[in-house]
Amino acid sequence: MANFDPNEHPHIRFNPLKDEWVTVSPHRMKRPWQGQVEKPQESEVPRFDSKNPLCPGVTRPNGKVTPEYDSTYVFTNDFPALLEEGPEPAPSDDPLFQAAAGFGTCKVICFHPHSDVTLPIMSKEEVRAVIDKWAEINVDLGKKYTWVQIFENKGSINGCSNPHPHCQVWASSFLPNEPMVKIEPRNKLQKQERIILQNDHWVWLVPYWAVWPYETMLLPRRHVLRIEDLTNEERDALADITKQLLTKYDNMCPTGPQLKEDNKHWQLHAMYYPPLLRSATVKKFMVGYEMLAQPQRDLTAEQAAEKLRNLPDIHYKLR
Amino acid sequence: MANFDPNEHPHIRFNPLKDEWVTVSPHRMKRPWQGQVEKPQESEVPRFDSKNPLCPGVTRPNGKVTPEYDSTYVFTNDFPALLEEGPEPAPSDDPLFQAAAGFGTCKVICFHPHSDVTLPIMSKEEVRAVIDKWAEINVDLGKKYTWVQIFENKGSINGCSNPHPHCQVWASSFLPNEPMVKIEPRNKLQKQERIILQNDHWVWLVPYWAVWPYETMLLPRRHVLRIEDLTNEERDALADITKQLLTKYDNMCPTGPQLKEDNKHWQLHAMYYPPLLRSATVKKFMVGYEMLAQPQRDLTAEQAAEKLRNLPDIHYKLR
Ligand SMILES: [Zn+2]
Ligand SMILES: [Zn+2]
Repeated sequence: MANFDPNEHPHIRFNPLKDEWVTVSPHRMKRPWQGQVEKPQESEVPRFDSKNPLCPGVTRPNGKVTPEYDSTYVFTNDFPALLEEGPEPAPSDDPLFQAAAGFGTCKVICFHPHSDVTLPIMSKEEVRAVIDKWAEINVDLGKKYTWVQIFENKGSINGCSNPHPHCQVWASSFLPNEPMVKIEPRNKLQKQERIILQNDHWVWLVPYWAVWPYETMLLPRRHVLRIEDLTNEERDALADITKQLLTKYDNMCPTGPQLKEDNKHWQLHAMYYPPLLRSATVKKFMVGYEMLAQPQRDLTAEQAAEKLRNLPDIHYKLR
Repeated sequence: MANFDPNEHPHIRFNPLKDEWVTVSPHRMKRPWQGQVEKPQESEVPRFDSKNPLCPGVTRPNGKVTPEYDSTYVFTNDFPALLEEGPEPAPSDDPLFQAAAGFGTCKVICFHPHSDVTLPIMSKEEVRAVIDKWAEINVDLGKKYTWVQIFENKGSINGCSNPHPHCQVWASSFLPNEPMVKIEPRNKLQKQERIILQNDHWVWLVPYWAVWPYETMLLPRRHVLRIEDLTNEERDALADITKQLLTKYDNMCPTGPQLKEDNKHWQLHAMYYPPLLRSATVKKFMVGYEMLAQPQRDLTAEQAAEKLRNLPDIHYKLR
């Protein structure tokens, strides 16, 4: 029998952060069927759209006006999933019907007054302003709430149809399931063949146990607890590497950044989950087997890193 | 402050089967944005398509011929995610790079020779033949493999573009993550307001902690370990209730059945996860917050059950 080759032979990989396994099927990369083909996102976004509630000066559906901002702009989501206060469910003795109060707030951060830009196309100073805003809101909301989650769902393929550059911040009175997971600083994560980009302060890689084909993780070189703990130099370097990686992603497809952090042993990092199977128009579905058994992927982490490394460093819109 | 109303006020609910919480935001049902609208599935499926590899007598891309079957037909997937044998990864001492052998097989079960039928439209005897086939394959593959998973990804909205009625069976040498969860028989699950349908042997309900808006669960009235343990009467009753529930689903949209089971304290059940947010053309996305924090839903379990209960019992194609 042949020697085991992780890029050829099916196997399962362990994710020590989530204490669960991923089924890897690299031999399937040869099959003819390549997933449902999605229409590529429209690229013609106007700089200003008087009907887009995220554009400066536009009146939103609830009657509030988005001001004439010229850098970032933060406001409370007009239809937040979490509310700041309200009645609480009564306690129940029945283990099958446990409900609890879940308070919080949902904010939107616009990255830039123009709708026709994205993080990789924005200037380094503009990206840095977004990073500073993330740090600021993390401090502000962290005073009142147990958990602050900064994330971006980018593109209609992910259920966000507003092309204006923005992200979301959900803060909650409870610690959600995912961050309950213990994440320790692990420099050993950085194995060469899964590294895509690095600079003096940051390493961008595909985790060994990645579930999404082009899922990546961004880690600082030193142990950093919270985004507001980043030094001036680290923030600049973050703006740099963010522009670089998103340029690579955009050269394949559109996607978005996500941040999470807390407690001493925790480690600041960002995760990117492009909803792609193989290419910009083929979507990854998490369905039958994955919902009821465990995640399954065809492309290995090493193959994904190689593909990402080899993508052009110049944004296709700037070529 | 108002009294707590689960259909009005945000809260979190506990899922004791998975030991995790779900964020419920019923107040959001009032927001104007209703999710990305998907094109409804084409309804004109020809009875026979000489290019469809699941139709009787058609030569598949790999050169094998699907025989002229007249009831159900089982074959090994031409591009299986799991293989029956192969080289195994070497053991590693590094907790960050744990891989293990994962062997198995992936089968396809065609439910019927005609492409233009679905379970709710098939006769009760034809549905019963599918149930008997599920029991048979569960016994067969269970002899060799640790875990047998029977599931259907239905419709291109779920990444399955073949309209021919079929499901998949993945059997594996390892126990996947999801079924490691302890599922005990719990008759108390059956609270009236979340019950959609019931007969002498089965109850169909929306779990209190359901994540997907129209997620449902099918439970037998007695404790049943495996699908092959079902009596003749129970199988007939299963064919009945399956046709009834899928008729309701089809009267809203297309979807599919999934089965799992094992070990003494486990409980045979089926789960349905329609990828819908509110209606047949609005898809539910599991993205940003859900991937990195915890599942979130707007519609409560009780509201979903009510909506499903009120859907017509006569299939729209038979009206
Ligand atoms: Zn958005
Ligand atoms: Zn299929």
